[in-house]
Amino acid sequence: MWVYLNNQFVEDHQAHISVFDRGFLFGDGIFETLRVHNTYPLFLDRHLQRLRQSCESIRLSLPTPEPPWEALLRELVDRNHLEHTMIRITITRGVGSLGPDPSGCENPTIVIFSRPLPQLTKDQRDQGVSLTILTTRRQPSCALPSHVKSLNYLNNILAKQEANEAHTFDGLLLNTDGHLAECTTSNMFFVKDERLHTPSLQCGILPGITRGIVLELAREGGIDVQEGTYQPEALLDADECFLTNTGFGVLPVGTIETRPLTSTRSGSMTKTIQHMYENRIASS
Amino acid sequence: MWVYLNNQFVEDHQAHISVFDRGFLFGDGIFETLRVHNTYPLFLDRHLQRLRQSCESIRLSLPTPEPPWEALLRELVDRNHLEHTMIRITITRGVGSLGPDPSGCENPTIVIFSRPLPQLTKDQRDQGVSLTILTTRRQPSCALPSHVKSLNYLNNILAKQEANEAHTFDGLLLNTDGHLAECTTSNMFFVKDERLHTPSLQCGILPGITRGIVLELAREGGIDVQEGTYQPEALLDADECFLTNTGFGVLPVGTIETRPLTSTRSGSMTKTIQHMYENRIASS
Repeated sequence: MWVYLNNQFVEDHQAHISVFDRGFLFGDGIFETLRVHNTYPLFLDRHLQRLRQSCESIRLSLPTPEPPWEALLRELVDRNHLEHTMIRITITRGVGSLGPDPSGCENPTIVIFSRPLPQLTKDQRDQGVSLTILTTRRQPSCALPSHVKSLNYLNNILAKQEANEAHTFDGLLLNTDGHLAECTTSNMFFVKDERLHTPSLQCGILPGITRGIVLELAREGGIDVQEGTYQPEALLDADECFLTNTGFGVLPVGTIETRPLTSTRSGSMTKTIQHMYENRIASS
Repeated sequence: MWVYLNNQFVEDHQAHISVFDRGFLFGDGIFETLRVHNTYPLFLDRHLQRLRQSCESIRLSLPTPEPPWEALLRELVDRNHLEHTMIRITITRGVGSLGPDPSGCENPTIVIFSRPLPQLTKDQRDQGVSLTILTTRRQPSCALPSHVKSLNYLNNILAKQEANEAHTFDGLLLNTDGHLAECTTSNMFFVKDERLHTPSLQCGILPGITRGIVLELAREGGIDVQEGTYQPEALLDADECFLTNTGFGVLPVGTIETRPLTSTRSGSMTKTIQHMYENRIASS
């Protein structure tokens, strides 16, 4: 497999960075994960917009001019003979001081590689996945702005370990105020009495690209949508629930803390939105 | 300069890791920074104890048996002809899944390199350094336990950028409850009415090795010590203030938000403790 690394394509076993790279030493960088469908990178403009915002928020200067992102992604897909895949763009502050002060770092490290689409079992697709509510809390924006998709992923990793211990597909993090936030790599929606709910961005969540598209599609489709602040009890009382991320799109949740939901039932709002989203992808 | 990387010593320009290393992708790892004095690594047992606790807290398994830490540090110091230096040990979960799930990672990446001692100007030593109180908050333990010295350093980096903007030596982070916590790479002490105060570990701070030694020395020396929970106003009303970290030891603070302190005055408690600490180093 080919990997793009700082202005050239190299084979994966040769894709190495210095141990002095601040991405390695401090997680001093950001990333984006895109989905490629029929060789075409989906929602590239939105991903690039978030990538630029992430960089700006941590004051990481992109090269001027920026790399030709679309051409690079197409070349990567082409060289690796891919049709449907995920692509990750990683940008770090590069080599610089060996302490937290990032002053003087002028050569960011840029890495682009592909990885397989998430593999879900037929059961997970048909019956929905399981969720548990975690004790690990989402790191708050006052410590690290939640709109930054950063390389600081230990919060998510600890959360995922906790979900693994509970033998659930994933876990839901509350924010430090105790309100519903998001899962380890996805945003969460729930349906109660025909209304679609999702935590607002003020809850300290990542503004997911798929989340944004689902909100647009739901509103265009005349669905009653509320972005709000919710206690975990609201979720335990929900009729349906689903997760969104770039890799799996819209994924129904079948159980929360062993309580079954009707997310995958024929005619459910989750199914309707999943269908809308798949149509949106097909028409991209 | 020589660098230890996964069972061998290599030259620094050859010290490379895979772009698929989880340390690079997610900051999925921990580190320790030690001081070497007269070729001797100071307080090695305490650093190794914290290193093991950091690993355990994120469930990162060290190799069995562990690397011969002391012999490796001595060889690094020897190969690089060093006498007084800093050494950083970095341990990541190595190459594994490309998502947050760390399951199945069995080969941690271990890197050890040296770097210069922190350089302070004569003015900083004589008159003390400047501090500002930051708006960036310390990330809370409910999101990432504060006793883990992890590779997730963006919180500290953003804080350092804020201190740079304020043109101060460093900045003080409050925790999410609004109480005094710590600086970007150091713990903080202050003196009020002959009593020594420092935020308790419950404030969500890193249990600094130098902090621990200073507390021991102060108590042994009959100084009245209180570890507590403090409002920022307590600091603005302090007589003296100093910072502790492995690199610079005990460092007097001369001003907080432009208000001068008496930390560097002859006979100050800060000077007494700085002297105690230097004696402790000299006798190690």
